Amino acid sequence: MEITFLGTACMQPTKERSHSAFILSFEAENLLFDCGEGTQRQIKIAGIKPAKITKLFISHWHGDHVLGIPGLMQTMGSSQFAKKLLIYGPEGTKENIKKLNEIFAKYSDIIEHEVIEISKDGTFFENDSFSLEAYKLDHGIETIGFKFIEKDKRRINVSKIKKLGIPEGPLLGKLQNGKNIKFKDKEYKADELTKIVDGKIVGYIADTVYTSNCLKIAEDCDLLISESSFTSEHNDKAEQYKHITAEQAASIANQSNVLKLALTHVSQRYKDSNVILEEAKQTFQNVILAHDFLKIKL
Amino acid sequence: MEITFLGTACMQPTKERSHSAFILSFEAENLLFDCGEGTQRQIKIAGIKPAKITKLFISHWHGDHVLGIPGLMQTMGSSQFAKKLLIYGPEGTKENIKKLNEIFAKYSDIIEHEVIEISKDGTFFENDSFSLEAYKLDHGIETIGFKFIEKDKRRINVSKIKKLGIPEGPLLGKLQNGKNIKFKDKEYKADELTKIVDGKIVGYIADTVYTSNCLKIAEDCDLLISESSFTSEHNDKAEQYKHITAEQAASIANQSNVLKLALTHVSQRYKDSNVILEEAKQTFQNVILAHDFLKIKL
Repeated sequence: MEITFLGTACMQPTKERSHSAFILSFEAENLLFDCGEGTQRQIKIAGIKPAKITKLFISHWHGDHVLGIPGLMQTMGSSQFAKKLLIYGPEGTKENIKKLNEIFAKYSDIIEHEVIEISKDGTFFENDSFSLEAYKLDHGIETIGFKFIEKDKRRINVSKIKKLGIPEGPLLGKLQNGKNIKFKDKEYKADELTKIVDGKIVGYIADTVYTSNCLKIAEDCDLLISESSFTSEHNDKAEQYKHITAEQAASIANQSNVLKLALTHVSQRYKDSNVILEEAKQTFQNVILAHDFLKIKL
Repeated sequence: MEITFLGTACMQPTKERSHSAFILSFEAENLLFDCGEGTQRQIKIAGIKPAKITKLFISHWHGDHVLGIPGLMQTMGSSQFAKKLLIYGPEGTKENIKKLNEIFAKYSDIIEHEVIEISKDGTFFENDSFSLEAYKLDHGIETIGFKFIEKDKRRINVSKIKKLGIPEGPLLGKLQNGKNIKFKDKEYKADELTKIVDGKIVGYIADTVYTSNCLKIAEDCDLLISESSFTSEHNDKAEQYKHITAEQAASIANQSNVLKLALTHVSQRYKDSNVILEEAKQTFQNVILAHDFLKIKL
């Protein structure tokens, strides 16, 4: 699993930071979370093919999180995208995507897509490999945060299997499915020859003031990606514009069994954005400040 | 007068080239021609304040020329833009801008603006300093090219004035307006003490196949900015997608008393985009290949 940050700015872009977006690549999926203006170019610079995006998740409809959508869809269309793009977002997303496409369908083809609006907290997608949860946030307009939960996997202990001389084939299939086996008249429990590997969890706290749902997103995350527009020095601005501070993001991580915290969505007011990182470090040690094109492997 | 190229890509952006846009800065005006996705960030990187944009000219509604408009308007709004943005474009522009704003007005304020649709060739704007012309192009959808014409100016010959001892004041004002003056009982003709300086002309041939209107835009340009998506090797692609080739752009310049030609809107298919430049040079010598953030002073 790999996370690639494509844009880490807050509201207005800077020379160093493009508008909000990151990709979570897992098996055949490239999940794009938010799609601020310029995302299609960032995707190309990051060496990812736009037509490989499989699902798009929209946290809210502020321009800095969505204005890259029509351009990305057009570029996917001219890149032989042959599938259906699934777009998940808060209430209003269906109408907004429809209106955007109404404008541009006059001038170019629109790729096949389906919009799924998320209106309640909890799991909204599940397959054999992972599930996705969404939780309402509080940012003045309809806003949701996301949580990617990889399923636990049973892994065969290859050295034990070799030692015992168990051949490849149906016996290993049984073990993989957690079933006990019999080999050369001896019974082996699945738990002896396999082990459960915990699936990874990645949470994304998009623009919001502090709410208890931040803790639900953060709980047990291997990686928590959180907006962190301001330092506590600008608590007033954070409240006015409905954002959390670096200290609050760190405190959420601290309370929620988070392994690693990545801060993003940094206000351009800080000439040295490390002030954000330094503040968070006082509360939560394993924290980094995301930058455009940062990759994190899990 | 200064021209700043903000985006010089064709259809899809590359690491080096953002989507179409350039600014012509003249006196208090910052005229933005096209506004592809990412333009607001390019404007900031170029060191220009987004709130200083005075007029926006849209050549046509393909995404790579317009998808930066809503983001730019939002950023101008959050940058204390206190004027009215004038937006000029082909038929359909009013409805498209209205629909874009309908989507985003739910979530943030929209700056004051006025859309003026241009439906016939010729002059569509004039003030004391310059006029603007538009000419229909042929790109499959409604498309126009633009021409900026600075008015000729009468300049006082300062060294002659000093030699004669003519003081600052109403006499110089008269000369500036082309009127003859009397000083110390001697009459001086305006043409003796002033000279006419030709205004500069800048043309912009946006996406199009060759049409006679390309020549109207190019005629007498000090600087002709022309799309040049392909080399002649890809004449078939140029015809299919309704673009001109480097050779055609150079030939237009060659026939039209153009001083300098700047090629832009370069297809990403050329690993070395200098092939575009080299082809044009065979027909027209004073040609350059524009790159993002190139500035040309006139």
